[in-house]
Amino acid sequence: MAEGMKLNRRLRLGMVGGGPGAFIGAVHRTAARLDDRYELVAAALSSDAARSIAAAADLHIPRAYGSYAEMAKAEAALEDGIDAVAIVTPNYMHFPIAKAFLEAGIHVICDKPMTTTIEDAQELAALVERTGLIFGLTQTYTGYPMVRQAREMVLAGELGAIRMIQVEYAQDWLATPLEASGAKQADWRTDPARSGPGGCLGDIGTHAFHLACFTTGLTCEELAADVTTFVPGRRVDDNIQVMLRLSGGAKASLWASQIAVGNENSLTLRIYGAKGSLSWKQEDPNHLVYAPLQQQSRLITRGGAGAGASASRSTRIPSGHPEGYFEAFAQLYTDLAEQITARAEGRDAPPESLLVPGVQDGVGGVRFIDAVLRSARNRSAWTALDV
Amino acid sequence: MAEGMKLNRRLRLGMVGGGPGAFIGAVHRTAARLDDRYELVAAALSSDAARSIAAAADLHIPRAYGSYAEMAKAEAALEDGIDAVAIVTPNYMHFPIAKAFLEAGIHVICDKPMTTTIEDAQELAALVERTGLIFGLTQTYTGYPMVRQAREMVLAGELGAIRMIQVEYAQDWLATPLEASGAKQADWRTDPARSGPGGCLGDIGTHAFHLACFTTGLTCEELAADVTTFVPGRRVDDNIQVMLRLSGGAKASLWASQIAVGNENSLTLRIYGAKGSLSWKQEDPNHLVYAPLQQQSRLITRGGAGAGASASRSTRIPSGHPEGYFEAFAQLYTDLAEQITARAEGRDAPPESLLVPGVQDGVGGVRFIDAVLRSARNRSAWTALDV
Amino acid sequence: MAEGMKLNRRLRLGMVGGGPGAFIGAVHRTAARLDDRYELVAAALSSDAARSIAAAADLHIPRAYGSYAEMAKAEAALEDGIDAVAIVTPNYMHFPIAKAFLEAGIHVICDKPMTTTIEDAQELAALVERTGLIFGLTQTYTGYPMVRQAREMVLAGELGAIRMIQVEYAQDWLATPLEASGAKQADWRTDPARSGPGGCLGDIGTHAFHLACFTTGLTCEELAADVTTFVPGRRVDDNIQVMLRLSGGAKASLWASQIAVGNENSLTLRIYGAKGSLSWKQEDPNHLVYAPLQQQSRLITRGGAGAGASASRSTRIPSGHPEGYFEAFAQLYTDLAEQITARAEGRDAPPESLLVPGVQDGVGGVRFIDAVLRSARNRSAWTALDV
Amino acid sequence: MAEGMKLNRRLRLGMVGGGPGAFIGAVHRTAARLDDRYELVAAALSSDAARSIAAAADLHIPRAYGSYAEMAKAEAALEDGIDAVAIVTPNYMHFPIAKAFLEAGIHVICDKPMTTTIEDAQELAALVERTGLIFGLTQTYTGYPMVRQAREMVLAGELGAIRMIQVEYAQDWLATPLEASGAKQADWRTDPARSGPGGCLGDIGTHAFHLACFTTGLTCEELAADVTTFVPGRRVDDNIQVMLRLSGGAKASLWASQIAVGNENSLTLRIYGAKGSLSWKQEDPNHLVYAPLQQQSRLITRGGAGAGASASRSTRIPSGHPEGYFEAFAQLYTDLAEQITARAEGRDAPPESLLVPGVQDGVGGVRFIDAVLRSARNRSAWTALDV
Repeated sequence: MAEGMKLNRRLRLGMVGGGPGAFIGAVHRTAARLDDRYELVAAALSSDAARSIAAAADLHIPRAYGSYAEMAKAEAALEDGIDAVAIVTPNYMHFPIAKAFLEAGIHVICDKPMTTTIEDAQELAALVERTGLIFGLTQTYTGYPMVRQAREMVLAGELGAIRMIQVEYAQDWLATPLEASGAKQADWRTDPARSGPGGCLGDIGTHAFHLACFTTGLTCEELAADVTTFVPGRRVDDNIQVMLRLSGGAKASLWASQIAVGNENSLTLRIYGAKGSLSWKQEDPNHLVYAPLQQQSRLITRGGAGAGASASRSTRIPSGHPEGYFEAFAQLYTDLAEQITARAEGRDAPPESLLVPGVQDGVGGVRFIDAVLRSARNRSAWTALDV
Repeated sequence: MAEGMKLNRRLRLGMVGGGPGAFIGAVHRTAARLDDRYELVAAALSSDAARSIAAAADLHIPRAYGSYAEMAKAEAALEDGIDAVAIVTPNYMHFPIAKAFLEAGIHVICDKPMTTTIEDAQELAALVERTGLIFGLTQTYTGYPMVRQAREMVLAGELGAIRMIQVEYAQDWLATPLEASGAKQADWRTDPARSGPGGCLGDIGTHAFHLACFTTGLTCEELAADVTTFVPGRRVDDNIQVMLRLSGGAKASLWASQIAVGNENSLTLRIYGAKGSLSWKQEDPNHLVYAPLQQQSRLITRGGAGAGASASRSTRIPSGHPEGYFEAFAQLYTDLAEQITARAEGRDAPPESLLVPGVQDGVGGVRFIDAVLRSARNRSAWTALDV
Repeated sequence: MAEGMKLNRRLRLGMVGGGPGAFIGAVHRTAARLDDRYELVAAALSSDAARSIAAAADLHIPRAYGSYAEMAKAEAALEDGIDAVAIVTPNYMHFPIAKAFLEAGIHVICDKPMTTTIEDAQELAALVERTGLIFGLTQTYTGYPMVRQAREMVLAGELGAIRMIQVEYAQDWLATPLEASGAKQADWRTDPARSGPGGCLGDIGTHAFHLACFTTGLTCEELAADVTTFVPGRRVDDNIQVMLRLSGGAKASLWASQIAVGNENSLTLRIYGAKGSLSWKQEDPNHLVYAPLQQQSRLITRGGAGAGASASRSTRIPSGHPEGYFEAFAQLYTDLAEQITARAEGRDAPPESLLVPGVQDGVGGVRFIDAVLRSARNRSAWTALDV
Repeated sequence: MAEGMKLNRRLRLGMVGGGPGAFIGAVHRTAARLDDRYELVAAALSSDAARSIAAAADLHIPRAYGSYAEMAKAEAALEDGIDAVAIVTPNYMHFPIAKAFLEAGIHVICDKPMTTTIEDAQELAALVERTGLIFGLTQTYTGYPMVRQAREMVLAGELGAIRMIQVEYAQDWLATPLEASGAKQADWRTDPARSGPGGCLGDIGTHAFHLACFTTGLTCEELAADVTTFVPGRRVDDNIQVMLRLSGGAKASLWASQIAVGNENSLTLRIYGAKGSLSWKQEDPNHLVYAPLQQQSRLITRGGAGAGASASRSTRIPSGHPEGYFEAFAQLYTDLAEQITARAEGRDAPPESLLVPGVQDGVGGVRFIDAVLRSARNRSAWTALDV
């Protein structure tokens, strides 16, 4: 396409993983569709070729492949090949698939945690840098308008210097040995060979960690962790407690658990600064409580008074009409669509679209997993995140 | 298509209204797209032909028309014409447009209130009966899983005989004379010529009324209403208070207001029976509070313990991952897709898909508007809903 | 006592009613004791003389009487007789007892509703005026700091002109025919001979009505009511719905119910003005939500930022340490102690102490009961409150 | 008094500390009075004799002393001397005063933390054992009915084996260097000489720690802590993070902070077991959320369905009429009155009255403070609580 021409079409998306029985694949498809910026035209939905083709037909996806390698090669060769691929497999496959598509010159949208080893994460980061391709990491919760509002307020100094962060992600779906029943989601997520070394740590702890960093712009200098497996026979952790020391003298406590009975998907974030605090709950995502020092607490709503530019940009309907998880996820897709389109049209992407996490966030998540496990093995000693 | 063949494609949808500056048109488009059962292929987005065509191009809609009449005629003649049309214009246009498409043999998905007069409503009902076509009315809130859960529980007798209902719909966006500023949404919604005789009454009062009837299966026998316009110069009501007597001896209080400062879209429903109660809030739609008589109150979540068939059917992701307004709206579209597809394939629609409100609900809403206004004019006398 | 001398002692309090099995008598005793302004020195706790004396001994009350008449006479004659009497009997006895003590020159603290007829209420009002004695009516909820804060804000104009009030008082303890079981509280409260003509209406409806008037300073001009007895065999109402037209063009909806399953003592008040709104819940009494027009909602706490003089005066401990029902009740006693002490010392009472409801509030409550019942008998016609 | 005789009077209480400007003294007085089991007859309210006597006169306390030593000696010698003394001074004075009264044969009710050193704590414990006197420690929050309900449920096994506890106590009143302004409460609480070595740790961290142990019956085996002083110039900590390993394999995270802007007195407890969880918030103390595994969450209210014996015993009014901080505090006084009366009457105290914390709880609190500070000084190493 000639430099400066307007890309007057939906982007062409491919998908690897996300066949029958999967959870996150369907979420990605809905998210990609929601704002109408993509059409899903190619897929390797399953590692079984026949199942892959049948599933694609059910989903009205025109081009079905039996393997991601074949797909990367074929799509790269097509005049109207895919602009980007969504990788929605179990964790251990993220790396080879992302590598294959990046090497084929195709932008990548990848689920988290990005890889199962630091080495793989660094190799991907290097590859992204070398190819200059766009790499989006679906840390879903950064797509919520009120999370972006929090970030905007913190970076604007409205809370003063950050002192203390409380972040937690509590679920209960693994309070029993569900994996022993053969449940597909429980099975691979508790299998270190497919999930990576972290259980709850990798699955949701990384979300909590990323959220704390994303909203405050702070980085973790060292951490001390206690890692527990409460359910007998489980091969990975199901509860982690972490104390963190962040840049600028801030402290944080992080808790992630999949055995916390009574919690469905309770990700909550509280940020305390010298001049104010913010509090947000994923299960009530359209609200943000803002407490300025020695003043009344206020309720910021997605589209209400005081919602800033980043919240407005990621909201679709008036406040009071709740948006939810799909819309947050869709925001990441839409931001990436902005980036990909801008690239195709030879212009800079709008700055707001760059909020979507990228390959360095992926590296950070894998380093977090690694540091937590090292600290836990070392009697919870303070442990720096490897660079 | 031959009887009994599987309709192996997305449905073809048309849209009338919903051009630039509109609110609900974009919601319909997103809702139709969310579950991937439709593709939007034809539209008359504006009553101005040039704007209609330009807007359609922006939205990648292949067939644009300058008028709904032209569109109905042309689409009916096409081999691959639209299966259904979505009508998202100001209220006063619902009737002629719905009539035109029904007469052209095309299924209709219509926003509410259905018409601005009882006569028009009845004519549409007769037309739907005569043509046998599918007519869906987008009383959005019936698409929420927890609203359907409430209905399922009430109809199963879990609350015992219903005694008292409290339903209210409070907003504040018209607390000031916003229409005087030229704001498009405020302008037509406060103009009786375009909105119909009810202001707040028609716009949101009908939702509250429908919700109470939908969840309980009760009908209104008579009502006593006080109707107020608080904002000076406003041409329609902005606050209504209604006492209702329902079938079976139940009572209800209904309040709708667009001047209730501090409320964004606060639709709440509480149902009290002899054996228990239910409470639901639209702004926290994934939860339903159930209080059995002399027992502890319980929290029913969208996909959690105790959520029944109708909730499960209308849920997409695990509990704790909030679904919202778009997903509720999408559910109506998906249910209608089930109905339309079943019709095309010559089979009965799944019973659950029939929960989407239809033309008789539309008649009921218009009758409610009419009875409230008659009662108010008659010093709040008890007034029966005209049959 | 010589004019101007400081009354350097606790006030001497008497009590009529409140013997074994009573509910509100013990509350009055605790409330009187809480701020240490009273000592309870005389009582006629029961209409049975022997039980009265035995109960007084159990409570360490030095002077016990067999009848209120005897007590009024004897105490009036004592040098150190009681300063005030608390009347905590079933409603039908309030009038003769209050009359006896007023005629004996003793200040009165009376439970609500004040009397069972308008005539009695007016006679008491005349007697209070004639004697110049202090008469406190324990509309408990006016003792809550956040209720007084609401009143202060409304009267200061912070909400602009009041437009709409939603007040409700929902309980469920009479959802079944509890009176048939012989439960003492249910028995007399559902017996018109002892409770007066209103059931739920008199018991809690009067609280809701008074709260709306107290916080806004508005009066009711006319009302339209629907009164229901849901529980078969019950002799009084157990659910009332009222639409009200208030001074200054404001409207209100009031609901009181004792059959609303899942509600314990859910008194809630929402006040909507042209410039803002307030919302308060008795079950979370230390908080008040304030929503200024087109600004973020704020949370006002009992002792936090923005709490004004009337809240500060009625708070004992720092915010976050919850105060409750006893403390609200105690505030009325303490305010009355201020009034009584000031009278004894020959000075004006502090203006803030005059917030405690008096005999005219009692007359208003009885008129409200009467008007609701007249409207209900007259097919919910708009009915003025008799003067 | 002869063995077996009924103690037919209020208990005689003395108080040391709690003069003008104090906070907790007035709370103790109100708490002691609330249930009418005590009369306050003697006091050394201030270390300044003249102020002590003047303050006692204002409070209608008949016997005023200039020093606690004088008071202990004099009261012990009186026929009608005090039954018990309440110690409400700054922390560093708890020990000598408690010692003096115990040695004088007088029961002690002491504020927390009990002492400022482990040695003092142990000496008090030995003295209590030797004298056989009653020693109550006012860990206020154990007086709340729903806290006792939680304990009852956990000990009855309703949650199964406890896995994880989250307890936190967040305030914001020391978010600025308030002590520099001369505010009396801030001044002594941030002065190690008067407060002891812990700041936030001793003041509120001990409450959080005790609450976790009290409700679960678990003990702490080791802990790892990070202790921070965020406000420049402050002499004690104002934020502590602790990871705990408890008996039976349970883990806990504890956070206490006095710089958490937006928090007034936010003590919250969540207990997760293999079969269920409980959640309680001090600022909404009348409710307890109970989530049984794979069932709907339930709301337990103070006097509602499912509230057990220990909650019923510590509740005064029907559910929905909120009780608060004073009532919780009063419960400790009332339980101690039961113990003291039983002792005087020569019988065993009712088992339920023994729930009030005692001298061993005091020792435990001081050990917790010590262990947290040792861990913090040792780079957060796991540290056992000294026995």
